[in-house]
Formats: sequence, C-alpha cells, structure tokens
Amino acid sequence: MEKFIYLDNNATTKTDEKVLEAMLPYFKEDYANPSSMYNPAYVTSRAIDNARSQIADFLGVENKKNIVFTSCGTESANSAIMSVFNKSQNPTKHIITTAVEHPCVMAVYEHLEKHHGAKATYARVNENGELDVENLLSKITPDTILVSIMHANNETGAIYPVYDIAKEVKKINKNIKVFVDGVQAAGKIPIELDNTDIDFYSISGHKFHAPKGIGALYIKEGTLFDPYILGGHQENLKRAGTENVPYIVGIGEASMLAKEALTIENTKVKDLRDKLEKGILAKIPNAKLNSKSKSRVPNTTNIGFEYIEGELILLYLNDLNICASSGSACTSGSLDPSHVLRAQKTPFTCLHGSIRFSLSRYTTEEEIDYVIEKLPGVINKLSKISPFQNELKELWGDKFNE
Amino acid sequence: MEKFIYLDNNATTKTDEKVLEAMLPYFKEDYANPSSMYNPAYVTSRAIDNARSQIADFLGVENKKNIVFTSCGTESANSAIMSVFNKSQNPTKHIITTAVEHPCVMAVYEHLEKHHGAKATYARVNENGELDVENLLSKITPDTILVSIMHANNETGAIYPVYDIAKEVKKINKNIKVFVDGVQAAGKIPIELDNTDIDFYSISGHKFHAPKGIGALYIKEGTLFDPYILGGHQENLKRAGTENVPYIVGIGEASMLAKEALTIENTKVKDLRDKLEKGILAKIPNAKLNSKSKSRVPNTTNIGFEYIEGELILLYLNDLNICASSGSACTSGSLDPSHVLRAQKTPFTCLHGSIRFSLSRYTTEEEIDYVIEKLPGVINKLSKISPFQNELKELWGDKFNE
Repeated sequence: MEKFIYLDNNATTKTDEKVLEAMLPYFKEDYANPSSMYNPAYVTSRAIDNARSQIADFLGVENKKNIVFTSCGTESANSAIMSVFNKSQNPTKHIITTAVEHPCVMAVYEHLEKHHGAKATYARVNENGELDVENLLSKITPDTILVSIMHANNETGAIYPVYDIAKEVKKINKNIKVFVDGVQAAGKIPIELDNTDIDFYSISGHKFHAPKGIGALYIKEGTLFDPYILGGHQENLKRAGTENVPYIVGIGEASMLAKEALTIENTKVKDLRDKLEKGILAKIPNAKLNSKSKSRVPNTTNIGFEYIEGELILLYLNDLNICASSGSACTSGSLDPSHVLRAQKTPFTCLHGSIRFSLSRYTTEEEIDYVIEKLPGVINKLSKISPFQNELKELWGDKFNE
Repeated sequence: MEKFIYLDNNATTKTDEKVLEAMLPYFKEDYANPSSMYNPAYVTSRAIDNARSQIADFLGVENKKNIVFTSCGTESANSAIMSVFNKSQNPTKHIITTAVEHPCVMAVYEHLEKHHGAKATYARVNENGELDVENLLSKITPDTILVSIMHANNETGAIYPVYDIAKEVKKINKNIKVFVDGVQAAGKIPIELDNTDIDFYSISGHKFHAPKGIGALYIKEGTLFDPYILGGHQENLKRAGTENVPYIVGIGEASMLAKEALTIENTKVKDLRDKLEKGILAKIPNAKLNSKSKSRVPNTTNIGFEYIEGELILLYLNDLNICASSGSACTSGSLDPSHVLRAQKTPFTCLHGSIRFSLSRYTTEEEIDYVIEKLPGVINKLSKISPFQNELKELWGDKFNE
C-alpha cells in the first residue's frame, strides 16, 4: 500500500512515471529556447509540435493549430473569457453560466460584474445536480455574448450536455460564444471537439497525471482570440512567454496515456467507485448520495453524512492516512458549505458533512476495502458527539452504540 | 565538451542538476494539492513556503509575503503593469518606459495604447547603451502613473540605475508606481529590494537555471495589487491556479544556487566573457563592441560584425555547434534589426550583423577558446561574399584573402 490512500484525484493527481520520464531530457540536455536559431532549438520546438498533436488528438481536434498551451486550467479559462469579453462591442455584456461552475470561472464573472459592467446570470441545476438546459437557454437575451458551462462538475462528477447546449445556443444566436471548462472531464470521458459548436475548451494537465502548472486551451477555427498573456510571439501569437517545454511534453504524454486509460477509467475505476459508494451507503445509516446525476464521470462520488461536520470527518480520515475532500481544493479552508451542493438543494442536514471521494487508475481495491472498513467507525464516533443525538439514534438504531 | 557550446544563456539556461533533484520528489510521492486538508498537503504547502523564503532572500526582501509565484517573467510583468493600469483612477494614464525594454514589456504598453487609451513615452539611451536618466525624469507629467525600467538589458547586458531612478521618481510624485523587469539581472548581480522605492520587480526562473515556466513577482509592502490570473485563493489571493509545486521548489533552489554563484559570475564568468570579447575584437578587423555601457552584467557581450548578416553568422556558428543569438529569442525569426541597438544608435554597418554571446557558470575556457579560434574564419568567409567588398578589404587588409 502507498504511504497514504489518495482519493482526491479531482484536486490533483500524481504525475505518471512515464510522463516524468518523457520530461526529463528537456530539463537535462534538451534545454534550448524553442525560438532560437540553432539545431538544439529545433529539438525543443519539434517536441512542442509533437505535444500539440497529442493534445489535439486527445480532444478530437484535427488541426493542432487550434491548441494553445497555457500555465494552467485557470489561465486557460481566464484567457477564453477575457478574450470574448474584450472583443465584444456590445455595451451591455451579458454572460450566462451555471450555479455550479468552478471558483476559477466564477471569480472571473464576479470580477467582470464588479469592475467592468458585465451582467452574469446563473443557470440552475435540479436536485440530482443535472443542469436545467431549458432554463439556461431561456436566459439568452440579445445582449448575451457568452455561454460558459463546465463539462463535468468537480464536486459531484455530474456531466453536463455541453455539445447539445452549444448547438442550441448557436441556433438562437450564432454570435454568442460558448466556453466549456473541461478540466474535470479530460481523462475521464472521451472528448470530441471537431464539428461541435464549442468555441473554447480548457483543460488542466494535473487532473490527468501531468504536473501542476500546465494547461491547454482549444480555440475553434475561425473564433477570434486575443491573447491574455502579452509579449513574445510564442504559441502562434496566442500566449507569450518562453514555452515550458518539459511540461508541454509532459501534458502531451499524459494525454496519450489518459486516452489509452479511458477504458480502465470506465471499467475498473468506475467499478471501484461504485463499490466504495455502495459499501458506504450500505454500512452507514446517515450516509446519503449527493452525486445523483444520471450522467456522471466514473471516478467521483460525493456522499453526505447527515448531522456531521465534514471537516471533522476529513481530520479523522487524515489520521487513517486517507485523503479526501469536502469540496473544491480551491475553496478549502472556507467553512461555507459547497455552492454546488447548495445549488442542487442538498438538505441542510447533509450540507456540512459532505465528502468527495475521487479515484484514479492508481486506486486499488485494497484501498477501497480499507475505506469501507474504516469509515463506518469514524462516522459512528462523530455521530455520538453530534448535537443531533435523537435524529442520529433513530437513523443508526441498534448500531449506534456499537 | 558538451555536444554543443551554449553561449545563449540570456535566452534560457540549462536546469541545474541540483534544481532537478530538488524538484523530483514533488512529481513522485509529494504530489498533494497544497490547498487540501490532509498531511501530504502540508508537505507541499511547506515546500512552497520554504521556496518563498528563498526567493525573498535572493531578492533582499525580509517579508516573504511580498513574493508571488507566477508562471513566467512575462506573466510577472503583465500582472504588475495591468494592476497599476487597472487601479489607476487617472483618466489619462501615462506610462514612462525605455526604448530598450524587452518585447514582453513593450507589447503590454503597445496593447494599452492601442486598446485602452494609455499613453506611453520611451526614455532614450546614449550611444553606449546607458539610460539617460535626466531625459527619463523630465518626461514625468501629472498624468504619469507608472515608470517601467529593466534592471539589465537582455541584448547588451547594460545595467540601469533602477534604485536611483525609483528614488528620483518618488521624489517627484510618490504616487507614481515603479516596475522593474529584473529578468536579466537575477543571478548576475546582487539584488536588494528592501528599503528601495521599487514597487514591483519581476524575475524568471529559466534565466538562472530553474526550468522554463516559473517566475516570481516582488510586490512592495503597502503597494496595492490586483491579481491578473483570477480564480482560487492561492498565493495569498494574488495569483489563482493550483500551485506548480515542483517548479516553485525548483526556482527556490535555483535562487539559492545563483546567490552562491554570484562570485563565480563576477569572476570566472566575467573573465571568460572578457577573454571572448577581447579575443574577437583583436582577431576580427570588422568586429565592433556594442556592449559599451560602463555598468554591465558579467556574462553578456554583444558584438557587431560590420557589413555582414547576423543570421548568416548564426547559421555558420550552428554548423560549428555554437549557440548564440542575434537578439532576443522572443523576436527570433524577425529580420528587423534589434530595437535595442537602434536605440543606442549603433551604426547601420553593424546593425544587421550583431551577435550576442551570453555565458553561464557552466561555460568553460575550452569552449571560449574554441569560439575565438573558429569565429575569425567564419567572419572572413562571410566578408568575402558581402556586397561591401571595398570596405571589408580595407578593414581586413592583408588578412582578407588568407
């Protein structure tokens, strides 16, 4: 067993050994600046070229020129959104997004509303965490410049029908741009961007076993784009700054490994996730499933433990060397309940005690069995110190004092 | 001898082996997201903390909270400039910079002028490439919001008196912000930012043997700053995006190694640079020194070869496995003569045939001797096919047909 049981792969993943191996030469002998005018620079610029082809293939894109490397998923999202916003001539810039987006996307809309006169509208999800597409489309106005939806939700794993939404949006007004945050989908479900109506699609390497600090942005052919990081001529004038050759090679390699592993994700990883979920729900009377969307990525489950504090559960799990999360890592430390669970009207009884478990192809059955074995004891112990004794006694019945 | 002689360290550097070694655990076992709530995350957040102390120490800054990690020098510069621009309430935003800044800084001012109504003024340098400080200060108007100067020039190595300029600027108007692009100074000369009037100072790891794709920005205590990359709470709310832990550890380690090596830079490296420079000037009759500033970083020389095309020289050097540059790597591929050399009024005879050699602590005497031995032949050969036969024959005299 690893020194800890890592069930927080939606927060970040381990760098695959093959990814590290692929990167190493670019730290060592092949370190030339790809923009330079000598043979060693052709080695590094060819490596970037190759990685661009790999990412294009991974995203179902034929023309690799539609791929831009960035420093992370957040930069990819910032770049797409800011470009649409800055390029729009509309005096009232209306943006439609969802109530369950990742903080890195939400923060940009809050910023644009607060400082630049944008107007953001948030489409709702139902109690299963499924996006209300009719509701989203009904919010389109003549001032709408952007529709921004995540492909898969980081907290519940719910998959949103981004291809269909993009199609419907363009039917209503082809000038509206569509940005999809694909950070939690990449490596978990197949992605096919060619012949869709999606204008921008962002991914982050460290969610699929590349290192932290590398991302990519797909920009549809013909969709105008202004770079966000300004300076040199790199990335076909779409992202300035000397290219991070090792990580670009790394994300390329990681994308190929992730593509190969999609079957494993949707069989072995899914089976382990299902086993974990069923095991917890069967053994813990106050456990309720928050991940109820019919369409869901295979590695994620989100379970609410009624009348208990999530932070306390995490502390006890930490003592057992189990890594899980009570929400997005980007909001860790905040005691506010998850905006995603609130949006799907998760009952208040579960809201504060919700835990996300996110698996990867490295997760073993032994690890899952260990969690199923240990978690009931943790929840039982915490139930006994909860202020909601009557409710919990009723739920647990005879097992409460075991 | 290495497989090539790398004299283009102002374009990028080799990652130091110790830097790579320091990074490796963060790709392997220590991969947790530093924002997470379990023990492995404390390992990564402590590593960031340690690297921040190292960078603070490197820059002569006591409070490490004044250091923000970014994805590169370009992002650091973009962030500082955009923050000053966006925070200013002045309807006419006037920016003073120099005619010799790096393209990544120039591009931002061009963008702000073109799209956001800013007004940029460019301070001149003299024929030695020295900044005309009086000229710069005389350009300050009541609308000036920012003075932006590089610490050392990437092409000629000239050092500009940034501390004194910042002091003089603040004497005239303490509300004017001062941004210093320190990318080419870091690792070459000591930097001491505490108790100066500099508000922002940017550095890039890959110029001092950390990998490409990591930078830092110093923000003076009390200087207001709006983040450029928006999203999560990382970097004390100053730069969103999951932290690139391995590279942050890498730039920290590289900064300590660079600090230790400052003596070597200013003795061994400087001596080799001087040997190269003197050797070339002594042996090649149409060679002229472009790096004439009294104050200069120890690793850089820029030499013009009259009546010859720089791109051709680079091609021949490439055949000899010698890597050098005809300007900034960020403008490679462009046939326009260097804006830096034009600004210092380098005669047209030299302008197109100027080559920058930039050394590092890895440069050996053997390599320098090889260049001094081989370069005269290259220049002589190219002189014979230059359209300026009379001029070159006169310069070379008897040696022309050797």
